[in-house]
Amino acid sequence: MSGQSQITSSATSHVLLCTGCSERINPKDVASNFRCRACGDLYEVEYPWSEGAPAAAPMERHPRPVNGPNPSALRYLWQERRTSTLSIDQSGVWRFRDLLPIVSDDKITTLREGNTPLYEMPRSAASLGMNWLLAKHQGMNPTGSFKDAGMTAALSVAVANGYEWVACASTGNTSAAMAAYAARAGLRSLVLIPEGKIAWGKLSQAMDYGSTTIQLRTDFDGCVRVLTEIVQRSPIYLLNSVNPYRLEGQKTPAFEILEQSDWQVPHHIIVPGGNLANCSALGKGFAEMKHLGFIRRMPKISVIQAAGANPLYTSLRDNGGVSLTPVSADTRATAIRIGNPASWKKAVRVIASSGGWCEEVTEREIALAKAEIGAEGIGCEPASAVTLAGLKKLVADGRVGKEETAVLLLTGHTLKDAQYTIDYHRGELLNEREMAGASQAELAQHAGLRREPLVLNADADSILRALDSMAGAPQPA
Amino acid sequence: MSGQSQITSSATSHVLLCTGCSERINPKDVASNFRCRACGDLYEVEYPWSEGAPAAAPMERHPRPVNGPNPSALRYLWQERRTSTLSIDQSGVWRFRDLLPIVSDDKITTLREGNTPLYEMPRSAASLGMNWLLAKHQGMNPTGSFKDAGMTAALSVAVANGYEWVACASTGNTSAAMAAYAARAGLRSLVLIPEGKIAWGKLSQAMDYGSTTIQLRTDFDGCVRVLTEIVQRSPIYLLNSVNPYRLEGQKTPAFEILEQSDWQVPHHIIVPGGNLANCSALGKGFAEMKHLGFIRRMPKISVIQAAGANPLYTSLRDNGGVSLTPVSADTRATAIRIGNPASWKKAVRVIASSGGWCEEVTEREIALAKAEIGAEGIGCEPASAVTLAGLKKLVADGRVGKEETAVLLLTGHTLKDAQYTIDYHRGELLNEREMAGASQAELAQHAGLRREPLVLNADADSILRALDSMAGAPQPA
Repeated sequence: MSGQSQITSSATSHVLLCTGCSERINPKDVASNFRCRACGDLYEVEYPWSEGAPAAAPMERHPRPVNGPNPSALRYLWQERRTSTLSIDQSGVWRFRDLLPIVSDDKITTLREGNTPLYEMPRSAASLGMNWLLAKHQGMNPTGSFKDAGMTAALSVAVANGYEWVACASTGNTSAAMAAYAARAGLRSLVLIPEGKIAWGKLSQAMDYGSTTIQLRTDFDGCVRVLTEIVQRSPIYLLNSVNPYRLEGQKTPAFEILEQSDWQVPHHIIVPGGNLANCSALGKGFAEMKHLGFIRRMPKISVIQAAGANPLYTSLRDNGGVSLTPVSADTRATAIRIGNPASWKKAVRVIASSGGWCEEVTEREIALAKAEIGAEGIGCEPASAVTLAGLKKLVADGRVGKEETAVLLLTGHTLKDAQYTIDYHRGELLNEREMAGASQAELAQHAGLRREPLVLNADADSILRALDSMAGAPQPA
Repeated sequence: MSGQSQITSSATSHVLLCTGCSERINPKDVASNFRCRACGDLYEVEYPWSEGAPAAAPMERHPRPVNGPNPSALRYLWQERRTSTLSIDQSGVWRFRDLLPIVSDDKITTLREGNTPLYEMPRSAASLGMNWLLAKHQGMNPTGSFKDAGMTAALSVAVANGYEWVACASTGNTSAAMAAYAARAGLRSLVLIPEGKIAWGKLSQAMDYGSTTIQLRTDFDGCVRVLTEIVQRSPIYLLNSVNPYRLEGQKTPAFEILEQSDWQVPHHIIVPGGNLANCSALGKGFAEMKHLGFIRRMPKISVIQAAGANPLYTSLRDNGGVSLTPVSADTRATAIRIGNPASWKKAVRVIASSGGWCEEVTEREIALAKAEIGAEGIGCEPASAVTLAGLKKLVADGRVGKEETAVLLLTGHTLKDAQYTIDYHRGELLNEREMAGASQAELAQHAGLRREPLVLNADADSILRALDSMAGAPQPA
């Protein structure tokens, strides 16, 4: 059921297309920093069957390729692979390998990522007045974030190209994912981080998976600069988000969402906006599905940023996305605390071509939305919660209709930032200033969602009395 | 593909069998504390097709039931359900619902638990001289621990029985799982914990998922005592591990291991031993598979305890498991820091009937084993790592053969206890006393596994020089 089909062999060849100057190059000739030698812009992967399909392209330019992969055959094949015991079939990324770049199966490094749940969110839907709301929880990946889907792809390319070291500049989800996949493949990995104010919790996974971590006496941009020099001087493979193969893995949740929806296209996809590679990747995934005839229209892809790290929002508001001015990022949603996003141009094109929007949300709105997602029994890291906070705004002003279907992209597991949860429920996250501007509805929601532990004497009467005072108290039989 | 079969409808009826006095009762008549009214012992679920199959029974007593479920049909059905988009088919627990107790599908509360990966551990296998070593990672469940598999079953029974409140005494994985599933079902949940020295990190998930948490002015046993009174006086459903339906969910990883091994029985299953419900559940799962003719022999099921929380080990050593003396538990492997395990009698029977063993391991052995599992790119919480530490002992004295297949049950995600990882790699976990007794091999392993961040100037030369000094340094092209 999982055998190599003819589809596969033809699909794996690809070129790299510069999203700036449209130059196409052989992947073997790509610079080690993954920047176009001509114009300095980023690449994306283009296949023989995907020409004209990139997220950057207007949607109606090309008809479905005559000799491209057959949607019916692929839908069946992808479904049947779920019943296989082979690791590359069990992976929710490599199950779609017919539309991914890889040379041979033995180079694939997988932790059985993907196949993440698409949860219904009935209470959030009800409070928004919507019929239906879904959350695609990429935090259910092996290392707890959406980065795994991209890392399995890019790390496998590193293996196929014979690298023994990989590297990134990151203190968070990227370093965790890179470290795990590198360890899995038997490769060494290097994480560069700025010295001082280390968030040890964010580094725990990279250390656990055996990464070599170096604190540099500089800031984050300095780390990226040094890293760029290192990969040019030494055979170390760069796994920052500029690596176009990471986006190939990160496009597969688009395929999963469609598969899980029985190929009915949701009206809206709502994505957190940090480095903006994720929305770019999802846009590419949906665009490829449309180009190949799996679906007839794109969902509208909207990006939500924290107000404290909102360079894309500002760019679109002030100049329609023509240029982007980096900001000094400040938000407790650390996974999107990025002031100078690498993939902003790709994101602008995805939002424009799909018909989506970009919104910003406050720290208070993020905290309340996170608690709301938690109360659905799902949970997420704070960066993921911007999606629900942003959706509220999109619904309030009518851009998202109440009868439409929206899918929130949750990017990280609640365990990724336990301290945030603790601080919120102990009342230490939202201070008086942050609550000062809250509406009556927000104050009521906050009071209803907070769960600070009570302290009582150890007798049943005390406890039952306390429960009696709560809504929905248990009634004696 | 996921339709109700005749198999299902007949399989859901069940009785509760007291594992102490063998009395059978109708589930409707069970006491709210899940203790046998006659002898005080624990129940297990017995189906019409499973009579004679419980883990407690000698293995060869009964032939395969004549009118029982058909293994070939079930194997096919379980596999095909993987291709379905229904949530009860996507669940790795409810996919096996033909062998689970449930009244109707609409009462099932699922977070798409189960379907966890069975990872190869090539480096650990090599260092043990084994051909083959596998890890079933139950930490890849939605709330990050094996408890989800049991909680989806027991919480669904609570819903089917009309409860609106559920409760447990726990500060760890159980409260996280209970809170998530209760929230999912729209039920309220109550967590009782001893006052003082709260590990907030352990409570973060319960708060996130909206549990009501009460600190009682007593110790853990006091919490259990008060909880027992509460569930007898109020319509609150008890979800501690004495609840026999939790074990029904927790038996399904046994089915998955067999399915993932193409129904070849591994020689050994190695399980961490805390409250001992997990090994009991897995024993029941494998025994049912054998009873129904899916497999011809049981794997040997061995339990590993931390030396600081070793009541079962002590019991088996001192009196062959006839009686158990509670101990004052002390270990950094908090998930198995239990001095008075509820399910110890069930565990004794599973170990004896399957031919397994019980071992204890030190804090140093746990820490090294955890770092080793991390370096495979997998990671786990410390309690899970006792399995690898224990396997080393079982291999060293020949109880596990080097050509045999062993499966380690990893019970929790590495993110469940990030602080432990940080402390280990910063050199703060294993103090001089703990390292004093280390062998040369252990010292070398510790040195090779530790990953404390370096601090360097922000220039490429410094970094490349540092890498040059490491094994496997990148060689300039």
